[in-house]
Amino acid sequence: MTLENFIATVPLFDHHCHFLIQSSVSNRAERLARVSSEADSQYPLNDTKNRLAWFAFQAEAQEFALNPDQPLAPMNATDYATYNQRIFSHYHFEKMLIDTGFIPDDPILDLQETSQITGVPIKPIFRLETHAEEWLVKTDNFSDWWSGFSDQVAHARANGYVGFKSIAAYRFGLRLQDVSLADAQAAYQTWQDSGITRLSSPVLISYLLWQLAPVITGQNMPLQFHVGYGDADTDLYEGNPLLMRPFLQAFCAKGLKVVLLHCYPYHREAGYLASVFPNLYFDTSLIDPLGPSSVTRVLNESLELAPYNRYLFASDASTYPEMYGVAARLFKQALNTHFENLTDVPAAQKERWIQQICHETSEQIYLEEN
Amino acid sequence: MTLENFIATVPLFDHHCHFLIQSSVSNRAERLARVSSEADSQYPLNDTKNRLAWFAFQAEAQEFALNPDQPLAPMNATDYATYNQRIFSHYHFEKMLIDTGFIPDDPILDLQETSQITGVPIKPIFRLETHAEEWLVKTDNFSDWWSGFSDQVAHARANGYVGFKSIAAYRFGLRLQDVSLADAQAAYQTWQDSGITRLSSPVLISYLLWQLAPVITGQNMPLQFHVGYGDADTDLYEGNPLLMRPFLQAFCAKGLKVVLLHCYPYHREAGYLASVFPNLYFDTSLIDPLGPSSVTRVLNESLELAPYNRYLFASDASTYPEMYGVAARLFKQALNTHFENLTDVPAAQKERWIQQICHETSEQIYLEEN
Amino acid sequence: MTLENFIATVPLFDHHCHFLIQSSVSNRAERLARVSSEADSQYPLNDTKNRLAWFAFQAEAQEFALNPDQPLAPMNATDYATYNQRIFSHYHFEKMLIDTGFIPDDPILDLQETSQITGVPIKPIFRLETHAEEWLVKTDNFSDWWSGFSDQVAHARANGYVGFKSIAAYRFGLRLQDVSLADAQAAYQTWQDSGITRLSSPVLISYLLWQLAPVITGQNMPLQFHVGYGDADTDLYEGNPLLMRPFLQAFCAKGLKVVLLHCYPYHREAGYLASVFPNLYFDTSLIDPLGPSSVTRVLNESLELAPYNRYLFASDASTYPEMYGVAARLFKQALNTHFENLTDVPAAQKERWIQQICHETSEQIYLEEN
Repeated sequence: MTLENFIATVPLFDHHCHFLIQSSVSNRAERLARVSSEADSQYPLNDTKNRLAWFAFQAEAQEFALNPDQPLAPMNATDYATYNQRIFSHYHFEKMLIDTGFIPDDPILDLQETSQITGVPIKPIFRLETHAEEWLVKTDNFSDWWSGFSDQVAHARANGYVGFKSIAAYRFGLRLQDVSLADAQAAYQTWQDSGITRLSSPVLISYLLWQLAPVITGQNMPLQFHVGYGDADTDLYEGNPLLMRPFLQAFCAKGLKVVLLHCYPYHREAGYLASVFPNLYFDTSLIDPLGPSSVTRVLNESLELAPYNRYLFASDASTYPEMYGVAARLFKQALNTHFENLTDVPAAQKERWIQQICHETSEQIYLEEN
Repeated sequence: MTLENFIATVPLFDHHCHFLIQSSVSNRAERLARVSSEADSQYPLNDTKNRLAWFAFQAEAQEFALNPDQPLAPMNATDYATYNQRIFSHYHFEKMLIDTGFIPDDPILDLQETSQITGVPIKPIFRLETHAEEWLVKTDNFSDWWSGFSDQVAHARANGYVGFKSIAAYRFGLRLQDVSLADAQAAYQTWQDSGITRLSSPVLISYLLWQLAPVITGQNMPLQFHVGYGDADTDLYEGNPLLMRPFLQAFCAKGLKVVLLHCYPYHREAGYLASVFPNLYFDTSLIDPLGPSSVTRVLNESLELAPYNRYLFASDASTYPEMYGVAARLFKQALNTHFENLTDVPAAQKERWIQQICHETSEQIYLEEN
Repeated sequence: MTLENFIATVPLFDHHCHFLIQSSVSNRAERLARVSSEADSQYPLNDTKNRLAWFAFQAEAQEFALNPDQPLAPMNATDYATYNQRIFSHYHFEKMLIDTGFIPDDPILDLQETSQITGVPIKPIFRLETHAEEWLVKTDNFSDWWSGFSDQVAHARANGYVGFKSIAAYRFGLRLQDVSLADAQAAYQTWQDSGITRLSSPVLISYLLWQLAPVITGQNMPLQFHVGYGDADTDLYEGNPLLMRPFLQAFCAKGLKVVLLHCYPYHREAGYLASVFPNLYFDTSLIDPLGPSSVTRVLNESLELAPYNRYLFASDASTYPEMYGVAARLFKQALNTHFENLTDVPAAQKERWIQQICHETSEQIYLEEN
């Protein structure tokens, strides 16, 4: 079997993606164009349509369309399921982990239903800040907030979650620091007094990460971090993973599995970190579906220093199946280019690494309970 | 028509370049070598001659020389005009915007004469800091300074300018912040008292940018920023465009057209910004003529996320026509490589994007008054 | 002669490497795997073996093995010398400069013996922080410490050293600042009182660099800096060479030859600095042997702006000859790719630049006394 054929049929474990939306949503063409970019609704749709991603999304729709004459036409529920399954089965998606914290308009919120439509088994990821905010509303003092929230974290595995995620980078950045209990208590009070539910205190987010890292390690569950690329709501300057060094030094060697998501344009930095810190994993999701001309280059740069068993496939896709499909197609092409060019490595070893990247490492770090 | 032929004849709108110099200047060979680098006069000329740019400049001179046996020999005024027109017409320069703030030794200061020598129509760009300094000398209090300077800005379009430029990056960096009137008044007094005309106060430069952004928007004129690569006088560490986020958040969605110049080595960051902020444009000028082996790679990296209608051709050339020519030649080659490799995109769409990059978008943002 | 053949036989001056170890050390296979990564002993050896470097190291051992059936078997002293000489002579190593400050377990500390085993002449590099620490132990007041230490620096050339090295990046980063004598004296006292020999004070390291720069310039010796890539003990965020701007501005134009080591992932920034500061040299060592798939790309990016006579070969290898060999092999391949693709440059000029990169520039800056 050629390397290309091997890659075409290797299963994909998408360890970071989001909800799809319902078939009944109108204006599918415009919504698909919108999701081909990270820009918000203030951004001109015409500019989004001058990006390569929009053309890749259309090509994906064309290739799998039930009605090739109208690839972007609305579909009924049955056709939508058929269409989804064509795409997800073509790329051999075997598992998806959904970050339930980001919710597009009109989502399919039922994981069971999502699994039926796509034909792919799904497990949920526990987003820390979202749940911390839910406990703010339920409590009126630090002690109750912390005991309620941390207790929920401690029972996440038992409740079906397979990993955690922090969006510290969307709230203040990645300059995570060890902080005192007293400072955390004061920050809680300021937050509670502000009347704003959104958690953005660097002190409180740092506190919860530092305190919960052992709880997460104890359940043998990975902790994902949004790093680098995202929408304009993140300050990319503060999203450099090198800023996480104090946190990584404190917890990686003690067994905490950390997963850096997206990383672009700091993917070289992420690869370096994976080469010197134990238990540090990363992906280049989101740039894969949204920056089609970048995928091979970014994958190559990511793998300059990192062990092959620390780099993971993910799409970070949401809303429509074309986004998952484009991510999978381009990632598999880039893998083929990368491994075709490697010298000094036997074919069997290449296949082993491809399996690790595409699904085995994720199976191991998310699904093995001990 | 092949893509290569299409690109060869597409017009170039050079929206950021500088004055040429007079034909009567002696030691043309040495001056041409000097301008093949951003280094100042303390830098050894021998080292400059060990850069690829010097060889590209010589090849350009050889190709268009009136006397191919002595391509770097001095020329009289008539031959100099002929030589210039050979180069500018070969690459189809259709328009140049000259930043009148940077003046090489022995420049052709008359835009009309420059246009005659090159055969290219020219419009001027208004450099904010330079004019702010002129008004310092003319005034002795904040109020007079501000009313004189801001009034001049408000009448720039009427006075023939087609855009503005800030060199904040040469004065303190790009950490632009909203500041109070009181702080600006105090900074003006400190500046006036210092006896130094050069404006370098972060407070005052931030103030004028924040206050003038609506005035510039009102004239529908773009505001250029020096970003990244330049001579040793800029602190490249502080020239990262991600630092501009508060300014971009404040004004882009309100219609201010921002153009990031040069950007290297932060061109990926610039491309990301263009993909999430409305009205945000950028180029990779200066690296094109001065880093010949980089051009295709830098263009490819720039276009990983950015819409094709947000990336612009520019040379940032000055002094001698070879610099404009090398920029044009290498940029057109890089465009060809980039678009040849694109899949999923029809040929007509490629041609449309090439036209936008080379001239249409600049025509639209600089020349359309409403 | 083809360019490839020319490069194959061009001598290599390895201006930055470390001690080899003795033949008698057991578990050669595991130690060789360990040295294929910058990770420390807490890092899982299995992950290190999933890096491309480990395969490159094994291929190197296979190619030069005395017993090809057991390329990683232990060797006696005679065979070890033969094996070393096969590798070092194959790549035409003509000189090595050893940074005597880093000492692996079981090193060959005798430079004479190292030279005999490898067949390559060796000169030592003076690591500033290490000697500053030796003088801390010998003294009890700032004045004695400074006079002893600075006197040793002033006699380094006379005592056989050919260059200096600072590991400021391993102690606090590269934000070097001019500091006062009083602050330095206070920092010395704090250091002395701490009972910790390790020098990590930003004030004291900045002080010694600022004060010793003229002493080093006076001996016409280069000053190397660890920049960028290294083990997890360095804070890569603070290892950006753009942070060195105040130091470079103060001393480069006065004749101090500064050499930036490693640089990755800041090699573009290093190349920019070399293009605008006199007397500024750099290499991309360490990534060459440890990131095999990166070497051509990193070399190309490094040479986008830098003069060819400012970029140097180095391995940063230690412990085993395979590491030196892999660095040499991949670097020579990358040189060939880079120069094959250059247009506008005559073949003789390419050969000249290759000689400068591989040995001539290092011969000039390290070995010429005036």
